[in-house]
Amino acid sequence: MDTYRHRVQYYETDQMKIVHHSNYIRWFEEARIDYLEKSGISYVGMEKRGIVSPVVSVEAKYLKMVRFGDEVRICVRMEAYNGVKLEFAYEVRDERLETVYCRGSSTHCFVNQAGTLIAPKRELSDYHEIFMKCLKRDQEEKEREKEAAQRRSAEKSARNREEKK
Amino acid sequence: MDTYRHRVQYYETDQMKIVHHSNYIRWFEEARIDYLEKSGISYVGMEKRGIVSPVVSVEAKYLKMVRFGDEVRICVRMEAYNGVKLEFAYEVRDERLETVYCRGSSTHCFVNQAGTLIAPKRELSDYHEIFMKCLKRDQEEKEREKEAAQRRSAEKSARNREEKK
Amino acid sequence: MDTYRHRVQYYETDQMKIVHHSNYIRWFEEARIDYLEKSGISYVGMEKRGIVSPVVSVEAKYLKMVRFGDEVRICVRMEAYNGVKLEFAYEVRDERLETVYCRGSSTHCFVNQAGTLIAPKRELSDYHEIFMKCLKRDQEEKEREKEAAQRRSAEKSARNREEKK
Amino acid sequence: MDTYRHRVQYYETDQMKIVHHSNYIRWFEEARIDYLEKSGISYVGMEKRGIVSPVVSVEAKYLKMVRFGDEVRICVRMEAYNGVKLEFAYEVRDERLETVYCRGSSTHCFVNQAGTLIAPKRELSDYHEIFMKCLKRDQEEKEREKEAAQRRSAEKSARNREEKK
Repeated sequence: MDTYRHRVQYYETDQMKIVHHSNYIRWFEEARIDYLEKSGISYVGMEKRGIVSPVVSVEAKYLKMVRFGDEVRICVRMEAYNGVKLEFAYEVRDERLETVYCRGSSTHCFVNQAGTLIAPKRELSDYHEIFMKCLKRDQEEKEREKEAAQRRSAEKSARNREEKK
Repeated sequence: MDTYRHRVQYYETDQMKIVHHSNYIRWFEEARIDYLEKSGISYVGMEKRGIVSPVVSVEAKYLKMVRFGDEVRICVRMEAYNGVKLEFAYEVRDERLETVYCRGSSTHCFVNQAGTLIAPKRELSDYHEIFMKCLKRDQEEKEREKEAAQRRSAEKSARNREEKK
Repeated sequence: MDTYRHRVQYYETDQMKIVHHSNYIRWFEEARIDYLEKSGISYVGMEKRGIVSPVVSVEAKYLKMVRFGDEVRICVRMEAYNGVKLEFAYEVRDERLETVYCRGSSTHCFVNQAGTLIAPKRELSDYHEIFMKCLKRDQEEKEREKEAAQRRSAEKSARNREEKK
Repeated sequence: MDTYRHRVQYYETDQMKIVHHSNYIRWFEEARIDYLEKSGISYVGMEKRGIVSPVVSVEAKYLKMVRFGDEVRICVRMEAYNGVKLEFAYEVRDERLETVYCRGSSTHCFVNQAGTLIAPKRELSDYHEIFMKCLKRDQEEKEREKEAAQRRSAEKSARNREEKK
């Protein structure tokens, strides 16, 4: 998962003395635009070509509060892409990536200047290729992480059984 | 469904010339606080009692873009309440309630000054009663609306069959 | 002075438990757009004509803190207009207009689609006329208020002298 | 002048396709907090001591528009300090510090938990010392920059006169 750093700002807090929940949605955007840039898709360049990419849906689960002064890392993964719509998954974590503060996702489409939905698969072949490559890479990484977690968990169980003997 | 009016502000737009998607999450909050106030729960009063109500999760589906100058109505309904957590459903609609721009939901818990989760059912009996009453009323209304929609749909089918004869 | 109502939102607070100072600048905008609308200039209509009105400068003096749950009134007055630039003065007050929370001002220019500065005096005669009328009315009102304040102050001094005798 | 980097975010733009003017006020805050941190004053630490530092006034002059995708540098200088109030000056510049997009300033006071104004000079001697040191350094730097600019300007005039001969 690609990670993006964000320093929590005073103006992002509310009177509960935590970051206002709407700001995580903004952080997802920061991290997503950075992710795309690193993958070869400039958002500025995309809009110059007359294409915008509205948010179709967004969701967030807040697990632990983030406070002013924290530096967080937003991990982004391409979760799905069907030639038309794009889905990203996010995790907001602490600096050392140990704690997960928030998990979320967002889906996006592509619209031309006439306001018509366009399919990258057919009409933006350069983006389509990049999306396909990112999806493959991110999902393979996800699979590897899952396997590693299962292996660690199995090893731990084995150790526990050994100790009990 | 209770409805709350919001005039779309210039500072809520982004360079896509639509309202930035994070602002709908803020509108949900505006409407939710207004809903609770009308139901007899003042947010200011709640915090004076040393209780805060963090957002546990939020989601939004963006169906149609809202623009600067629009006046929207945010419809709020209590969707679930289990004595501990509260869930609200939202619809952002146009002034005449004809078009749905956005559908969303949010869940909330209650925390005391020590940072401990508290259950309104046991520790905030006045809120608990209000929540129970609101939930009953809103869900009954939802049921009635569903039945009315089914009736309208059945009548329409009947009319169509009549006309075809 | 024209007054515009704004209910202070939870998301407008920061962890100092007051409204974040940047939001007053947004309220000025809300109130200014409302003022222009009431005067016959729709901001949506202006942008449809290909004209935007960027902010050239802004300032605010924070006298008293505003908190969540407060309902404020933002009073707007056209303070200057020289055919090219427009200046507004603002006061954020409490509901009954008794306390002044914040005083501010902002200046604005007009730019066409080519990005060129345009003078309403020469190129937007309908706006020019409205601006001139608003300026006259607002400045006359300001003068009257000043005189009334001086009269009240003089009367008070007179009363004080009477009482001392 | 100390400089702080900020990457312009999509959510900071408005439908004029530039950064909304209220966000510069937020950038001033980002840069100011960073400046204080580098000078030895942690804002988090200050609030833990029961002290908050509200904004007393703010102003900004917008000279050139900043757009999404730009990386700006916010230059901060301590402009005045009288033992009670603190004033900062800001310049928002491009990455190479060549263009000035915006100039601004802000003043701040210090308030304890009882809500009473406190003078760092008498009650926060560690902060007072830091403020005095920063002010001296920043104002000396300002003086040097002014002299350098005058020298460059004088040299340029001299060269022009030479060339005219």
